Amino acid sequence: MLPLTHTIIDTALQETDITNIGAATIRQIGSLARCLERISGERFVHLQIGNPGLPPNEIGIKAEIDALRCGVAGHYPIINGIPQLKEAGSRFIKAFMNLDIDPAGIIPTVGSMQGSFTIMMLLGQRLPGKDTVLFLSPGFPAQRHQAKLLGLKEESIDIFDCRGSVLRQKLEEKLSKDNVTAMIYSNPNNPAWTNLTDEEFRIIGELATTYDVIVVEDLAYIGMDFRTDFSRPGESPFINSVANYTDNYILLISSSKIFSYAGQRIGIVCIPEKVFTRRYNRLNEIYDMPRFGDAYIFGVLYAMSSGTSHSAQFAMAAMLDAAVSGKLDFVADSREYARRCNKAKQIFIDNGFHIVYDKDVDTPISDGFFFTVGYNDLDGEELQRELLRYGIATISLPSTGSHQKGVRICVSMLSDPSLFTILSDRLKYFSHDH
Amino acid sequence: MLPLTHTIIDTALQETDITNIGAATIRQIGSLARCLERISGERFVHLQIGNPGLPPNEIGIKAEIDALRCGVAGHYPIINGIPQLKEAGSRFIKAFMNLDIDPAGIIPTVGSMQGSFTIMMLLGQRLPGKDTVLFLSPGFPAQRHQAKLLGLKEESIDIFDCRGSVLRQKLEEKLSKDNVTAMIYSNPNNPAWTNLTDEEFRIIGELATTYDVIVVEDLAYIGMDFRTDFSRPGESPFINSVANYTDNYILLISSSKIFSYAGQRIGIVCIPEKVFTRRYNRLNEIYDMPRFGDAYIFGVLYAMSSGTSHSAQFAMAAMLDAAVSGKLDFVADSREYARRCNKAKQIFIDNGFHIVYDKDVDTPISDGFFFTVGYNDLDGEELQRELLRYGIATISLPSTGSHQKGVRICVSMLSDPSLFTILSDRLKYFSHDH
Repeated sequence: MLPLTHTIIDTALQETDITNIGAATIRQIGSLARCLERISGERFVHLQIGNPGLPPNEIGIKAEIDALRCGVAGHYPIINGIPQLKEAGSRFIKAFMNLDIDPAGIIPTVGSMQGSFTIMMLLGQRLPGKDTVLFLSPGFPAQRHQAKLLGLKEESIDIFDCRGSVLRQKLEEKLSKDNVTAMIYSNPNNPAWTNLTDEEFRIIGELATTYDVIVVEDLAYIGMDFRTDFSRPGESPFINSVANYTDNYILLISSSKIFSYAGQRIGIVCIPEKVFTRRYNRLNEIYDMPRFGDAYIFGVLYAMSSGTSHSAQFAMAAMLDAAVSGKLDFVADSREYARRCNKAKQIFIDNGFHIVYDKDVDTPISDGFFFTVGYNDLDGEELQRELLRYGIATISLPSTGSHQKGVRICVSMLSDPSLFTILSDRLKYFSHDH
Repeated sequence: MLPLTHTIIDTALQETDITNIGAATIRQIGSLARCLERISGERFVHLQIGNPGLPPNEIGIKAEIDALRCGVAGHYPIINGIPQLKEAGSRFIKAFMNLDIDPAGIIPTVGSMQGSFTIMMLLGQRLPGKDTVLFLSPGFPAQRHQAKLLGLKEESIDIFDCRGSVLRQKLEEKLSKDNVTAMIYSNPNNPAWTNLTDEEFRIIGELATTYDVIVVEDLAYIGMDFRTDFSRPGESPFINSVANYTDNYILLISSSKIFSYAGQRIGIVCIPEKVFTRRYNRLNEIYDMPRFGDAYIFGVLYAMSSGTSHSAQFAMAAMLDAAVSGKLDFVADSREYARRCNKAKQIFIDNGFHIVYDKDVDTPISDGFFFTVGYNDLDGEELQRELLRYGIATISLPSTGSHQKGVRICVSMLSDPSLFTILSDRLKYFSHDH
């Protein structure tokens, strides 16, 4: 019976051993919601997790099955990646971003999750004194957790109040201390679905060069700023990136969302030549390998998992190739999320919620995979808990590094039209009670 | 033209950016050997890497293809593992080791490489002051490298001169300092292919309980002590383990060698209930989760790679199940390595080499995947370098934590009978020159 009582919520928190709901991981919130479903008998609306809500790409599946039939399961994948994937990654970046990265710098990882963990590890080691990661917040909570596990220090800038030219001053403040080795953000932004403007990319790029900071640009949702059509390979408009303004960058591209291929845990880390070949005394001490790229492949990735599923590499290579040749329109495929987002946003707004991160400087944000909502003056944890009582699972904005009040809404699991009706009914009920 | 000159070796070392051959990783030695093949035009005998030299198991491939056809690529694998794999792992351990581990404690990882890295991370965090890993040496070099990356301190005992009852005294010396959180070894041993005796398991188990040390037993080569036939599921003799003498243990089982499935990077970590459910203040501080098992799954594994290839989990589940039902005799399949080993050992001995780790207390070691050889008084690095000059790639014993002079020989790549002839000819040549 909704709303669930506070006692039921507390029981489920205890049962799932969650001591602090606002700090719980996405997976823990998932467990909590399933526990509440079991206790209450009510089906939840799962808006907490970015599980791809579309069928996995058939081109990938076919390539993966073919590779398995050829016996690739029997051999360790080469740690730097199969040549097909390295070349396809390089072509993909050229076709959609108009950037040149040599295949040598395209390296598969066990999803971008492994990509960001391993790259942050190495970036935290490269130079004495540079022991801090600067997050453009809000951001993917798991990446902050990764930095913590790595023993790295953290700085954060909430983009809520420093968009556009204001960003330069805020960044200078942080970077001029010279302790920042890397800056990390996702674009489109997870959770806010903001997109950096050209001016902001230029500011970040210029300051990264000035202060020897390496920018890790997480492109999990590449091409999904649907306000512009990025679907034509090799043709303008190209997807913008900090790479256009600095050589100090690394890109993370994942198959999870653009190809709905999250199950196979396959992504690529893209390291341009200047970053790959740069030599560091510190890396030579740790790995007996001075070059960043070698230390990354043979020192870090080897130690993490001895590489990435052999067959999944063939899958990703085939999907990237198909995208480059125009056979696979991942932008059009992903547009379904924008449709779901548009409907869900309206339902929240109709029931008294507001969009927290609502604009890119002066332009309304794109519809997409996520958006952020607030309700009156409820803080993130209160709103998250209250929504749970009405059978709606979300994650709180503070858990994403944001200082704003609200929660993140992910639309990927809204695959069934009936879920919109349920969502609408529950939010009506919620707003009536609050 | 063999032997290669020292100049050629130095050129290749420079080209592959290896500053210290004795400390190079297995992957680096592979690159070095391929570089030397290119420069010299001579085909090398690759005895450095444990790439499974048998075709991948068909049952696994079939299950993996079926899973892909069912669309598992589209969904994040549940972090604690698909139920089928958890249950199959539990049954496998019961059938071949006669141990009871609840399916909840069976957790998939991206190969045992990720298993040992992640488990060591958590073991290094669980108790203040317990910041040291004790390696029974020799061991898998990558695991020492992992400890280093994790910032853990290391202790090591070379089993060469402390087998049997002597082990107790040596272990007491190390463990009584109370700074050791975990002990790690592989059994059968990589690289020495020794097997711990029942007395040694008892000593390790008792001391692990006394000093609150958790023993990580790496079973990459489970069942491959071919002196005993372990091929009958559910029947004595069962594979011995420290688990018979302490509750403080964790097992690592990999599909790479027993099912020749290295390409898909799939293994399981097996955590018994007492270890899984133990609560730690320190883990609660770091992860907001006090229980070891929860912190492992949701805190560590989630951050490393968000789980393990969905389809590969189905493959491993099917292979474990087939082994339990007697349909897949992985022991018989692996016996091919013993045959190769027997021939290769004889060739080395015939040419003046000796087996370094030759006995389990008073019994000659089994034939298997690896063995260790020395030549007169050459130290590990000299012997490794000299063998390279004769077109034979190996890794040095010091890189495995051994204090003995010699190199590790892996027979897995000796798949072609002609390679034995080439090996024999080159070793004759080598011994003539030395």
